[in-house]
Amino acid sequence: MDPDAGRSEVVLELAERRKSVRAYAASPIKLGDVMYALRAAIQAPSGANQQPWRFIVITDPEVKAKVRMVCEEGEKRFYASVRGELREWLEERGFTWRKPFLTEAPILVAVFAESGKPYAVQSVWLAVGYMLLALEEKGLSSLTYTPPNPGEVARVLGAPPGYALQAVIPVGRSIDTRPKEPRRQLEEVVYLNKWGARFGIQENP
Amino acid sequence: MDPDAGRSEVVLELAERRKSVRAYAASPIKLGDVMYALRAAIQAPSGANQQPWRFIVITDPEVKAKVRMVCEEGEKRFYASVRGELREWLEERGFTWRKPFLTEAPILVAVFAESGKPYAVQSVWLAVGYMLLALEEKGLSSLTYTPPNPGEVARVLGAPPGYALQAVIPVGRSIDTRPKEPRRQLEEVVYLNKWGARFGIQENP
Repeated sequence: MDPDAGRSEVVLELAERRKSVRAYAASPIKLGDVMYALRAAIQAPSGANQQPWRFIVITDPEVKAKVRMVCEEGEKRFYASVRGELREWLEERGFTWRKPFLTEAPILVAVFAESGKPYAVQSVWLAVGYMLLALEEKGLSSLTYTPPNPGEVARVLGAPPGYALQAVIPVGRSIDTRPKEPRRQLEEVVYLNKWGARFGIQENP
Repeated sequence: MDPDAGRSEVVLELAERRKSVRAYAASPIKLGDVMYALRAAIQAPSGANQQPWRFIVITDPEVKAKVRMVCEEGEKRFYASVRGELREWLEERGFTWRKPFLTEAPILVAVFAESGKPYAVQSVWLAVGYMLLALEEKGLSSLTYTPPNPGEVARVLGAPPGYALQAVIPVGRSIDTRPKEPRRQLEEVVYLNKWGARFGIQENP
């Protein structure tokens, strides 16, 4: 018996189960579970191991309210200007400038990247990938919310120049009844040995 | 008894165990294990669910050799020009323009981002985070290698304009004896409610 047999596909299970959640129960969550996810995140690789990430865990309702207000100011301007396919995508889903999850979620995590470090943005988002799976493992839902005015949000949180806000991630228990957005089939996005080459049947796992 | 008790910290365990690996055993690995990691990767969230990722799984030794050759041409130019702290960091570790892992690893995964999609680079690297943990779960090591000349590597692989190479990830069994690069303490990179505010003892998990 393989001792790892029972747990050998946990990552896929978590990845499939996790969906973006925009509606959260007001019930408190354990700060320790959020710290667990950050402990995982900071184990991610980064360009020249510079670990260019910083996180602000926001539990204070006043800070959440301020963050929401600033984000919604940016969103109002964004929604007034957005056009084309993205506008349609947003309208189909009923999305508006209102971001209630920024005050309803019990905890927000603001994520920053240190400018000028090699591959800083890439490294930070890789770490966010670790974080989302670790939150899901603890039964916590999340959203990689990217405000249209990250500089203004960073200032509200007191970030010094040189650190760019990447996302504000609400964390909590889902009360979002929307299903996960569907994903493309693996065969549509994975090629073998050169661009566009589909896997033959015999090469499929 | 919590039925999940035995598996509730798998993500952290994988994140801590995973290190960047630059030396690989020649022994073959299961293509199915790499596909497993890609099945996890494509479950990641992305800007407006555009799933801007594409992957080329490279098993053909001739293609690996071509990729290595092009990358090493770029690396020679890069190493001739790199200065300052990054140069020191590289020299301390004995890193050179030679990238033998690009032919020694049994499989490479080239990762692309579709230009012009919202938050394409961020979304793709988040998915890479999922992928690395899933590979580690299958006992496979990896490296997020970023060639200095991604456009040239993309052309060798036949990628059309509009898809930017993000990384070439060797995958295989580690024979790398270097330890994992150390990470900063959590307290150095995580603040509470505003920038720079340390967690008090009572707030620690």
